Amino acid sequence: MEAHIISIGEELLLGKTVNTNAAWIASQLDQRGIATRAITSVADSHEEILRCVDQAASGAGLILITGGLGPTRDDVTRHALCEYFGSSLHIDHQVLEDIRLFLKKRGRQLRELNHRQALVPRDAKVIRNPHGTAPGLWFTNRGKHFIAMPGVPHEMSWMMQHRVLPDLKSLVPQQSILHKTLLTHGIGESDLSEKLSIWESGLPPGIRLAYLPDLGIVRLRLTARGKERDQLLREMDEQIRKLEKCIPGQIYAVDHQTLEGVAGELLGGHGHRLAVAESCTGGYLAHRITGIAGSSAYFIGGVVAYDNRVKQDLLNVCADRLRSSGAVSGEVAEDMALGVAKRLGATHAIGITGIAGPGGGNREKPVGTTWIAVSGKAGVTCRKFLFADNRQRNIVRAANSALAMLIDCLKEEAQKGCFSTTGSA
Amino acid sequence: MEAHIISIGEELLLGKTVNTNAAWIASQLDQRGIATRAITSVADSHEEILRCVDQAASGAGLILITGGLGPTRDDVTRHALCEYFGSSLHIDHQVLEDIRLFLKKRGRQLRELNHRQALVPRDAKVIRNPHGTAPGLWFTNRGKHFIAMPGVPHEMSWMMQHRVLPDLKSLVPQQSILHKTLLTHGIGESDLSEKLSIWESGLPPGIRLAYLPDLGIVRLRLTARGKERDQLLREMDEQIRKLEKCIPGQIYAVDHQTLEGVAGELLGGHGHRLAVAESCTGGYLAHRITGIAGSSAYFIGGVVAYDNRVKQDLLNVCADRLRSSGAVSGEVAEDMALGVAKRLGATHAIGITGIAGPGGGNREKPVGTTWIAVSGKAGVTCRKFLFADNRQRNIVRAANSALAMLIDCLKEEAQKGCFSTTGSA
Repeated sequence: MEAHIISIGEELLLGKTVNTNAAWIASQLDQRGIATRAITSVADSHEEILRCVDQAASGAGLILITGGLGPTRDDVTRHALCEYFGSSLHIDHQVLEDIRLFLKKRGRQLRELNHRQALVPRDAKVIRNPHGTAPGLWFTNRGKHFIAMPGVPHEMSWMMQHRVLPDLKSLVPQQSILHKTLLTHGIGESDLSEKLSIWESGLPPGIRLAYLPDLGIVRLRLTARGKERDQLLREMDEQIRKLEKCIPGQIYAVDHQTLEGVAGELLGGHGHRLAVAESCTGGYLAHRITGIAGSSAYFIGGVVAYDNRVKQDLLNVCADRLRSSGAVSGEVAEDMALGVAKRLGATHAIGITGIAGPGGGNREKPVGTTWIAVSGKAGVTCRKFLFADNRQRNIVRAANSALAMLIDCLKEEAQKGCFSTTGSA
Repeated sequence: MEAHIISIGEELLLGKTVNTNAAWIASQLDQRGIATRAITSVADSHEEILRCVDQAASGAGLILITGGLGPTRDDVTRHALCEYFGSSLHIDHQVLEDIRLFLKKRGRQLRELNHRQALVPRDAKVIRNPHGTAPGLWFTNRGKHFIAMPGVPHEMSWMMQHRVLPDLKSLVPQQSILHKTLLTHGIGESDLSEKLSIWESGLPPGIRLAYLPDLGIVRLRLTARGKERDQLLREMDEQIRKLEKCIPGQIYAVDHQTLEGVAGELLGGHGHRLAVAESCTGGYLAHRITGIAGSSAYFIGGVVAYDNRVKQDLLNVCADRLRSSGAVSGEVAEDMALGVAKRLGATHAIGITGIAGPGGGNREKPVGTTWIAVSGKAGVTCRKFLFADNRQRNIVRAANSALAMLIDCLKEEAQKGCFSTTGSA
């Protein structure tokens, strides 16, 4: 059984509301092995709803509709569905009582307008709604299911979780679905695709691969579908092992992990202490690191050295070095990393200097030129990058690269069994 | 002419990606007087795309398609459209050259796979893409327009703004639409609505108001529609003058201005020099400030003082103070602002200390407790906030409040005619 989600509401078509309801419903269905065939947003219009439900029913067996069940004039879903199924409306006294109680709890009275919401089609099963005044409606017709729910996100999600999904369970042939996401860094989508080409063509029919590129990162999402969960797990594991061999060392995180999360686990697990010195990223790297709850266990702090004077005064970057090599150079990135490590008493440090743009570039050092240095137990590593993007995106690319370099450094140290000390100033 | 937006991508149907592209496109069309009739999301499947384009064309005159133009195997949009219009593919050498240059700039080579992206249908007008490797395609058939764009949001939005919308202009009957957005801070949506209630009920029928709340900020968007542009401009100006009187001093920015942009203009225009000392915001405030191109003219740098030792060593916060008042206190926020100003030679400085959460809170100082100090020419101002939100949102709320306090301080100085010096350490 495939699903078609219909979202009703003018605000969606005006672009005033982003359709988060549909994404949430789709992910809930996906987790239960129901594929969503399409998502459609249409206006609160009788004709549009009829047309859209009819189209959906031509392909899908499960039609999930949200919105247009409120008490006002622009809420026409119930009448449209009533006409579609050739049914007629009647007052459901249980629903009316639900609405009266719901309003009473909030110190409000039942109004004439609310009576409209107790009008339900005779041929629909009513889905009671403890979180609002609009009941849901469930029609069954020629083996297909049409379920209308309120558009208010928390009313809809409660109804889905507590009423709709439990009842759907018995209707859906049990199919297992597995997802696995691998985060790669430092290799473009095309290069990646070329390196994975042979492996990709050998994938069994039940496993699909998707490329999700994002600022120096490409996420590889594998989806496996089938009857036997255990077999899927085995197949998936086997494919991931093969995949890893095609791009050794380039998978930095899996599933919901982030680069800063993985770096944090590697740091925290070994009693390391991190500090950062940022020029072109202007605090964004520290922001990413401190976005992780509990990062204070391994992150000491940082210096945003925008002005060269700050590089000299707080990070001990030598003035001669700034003159001879320029602020955007490998030497200065290294000095920044080593300077902040010393100043803040860190075991590990990152120094970033670059030209985020749009101004400040020249022939020799175009916008996007960025030097990143990572210092650890075994010394300092420095790399030059050229991010030919806009200011905001160059900043994110630089932070992603810095985090990936830090992870490389920490993994290498773990492999080499570097002596681990807790950092103290 | 009505529009139908088709979003292609399996990630949308799995609920892994919320369809922000469609909402953005719909709002852009709305601003130009084009109504969106429906939005459909379908998978990267040849048959589904054909079916969906056909359905869309039965109702709409403008079909906007995003996604599925990448170089990999799961990108099938170009082939599906080619079949739909009975066209054939050929290599567009200009596109191939665009791709080659795009990759070269990033130090990457043209690969066999990229040639696929230069394959375009003979009957389509090519829309060149300076921000990625996938060109857009524009088909015209029986007076209807079919426009395919990449699914990567910034590539799509650039193409819409610079290529598609300008060309659509000549196809749409001219109606004048004016938008004006006012950014308010420090007043909730309900309070605002109450204060504006009388003014709002007196709005002429052609002018509409929308409230767009976002983390301590509420944007008020006024939209005026009509035939006569000059009259609309006059009416809009008059309404904004009235509105400003209802909430004096609470409008911080207009239209596309940001808090950090307004603060930057006030700083740069007077030769001021800013430094920041952050604890709970962990670099996010510096990131917001340095997000503005040219901020190096007035932003010296900052210290992310996560560990208390950094507060003492780099910001001269007294150890006794940290013990007696605690790290999250007005005294420490003030010391941080004054300390970083002195250390970096700034005329203006911000100090932030707080509990971003989820851990670290207690009865006396719950999660979200935040102290912000702003030091300027006339001394230091300190305020306590309680942001009862999650970690990420508490951080953004704190930065928004800090920027609003800095703007208040700079405006007050300008009004009082405070003596202005250029900061030097």
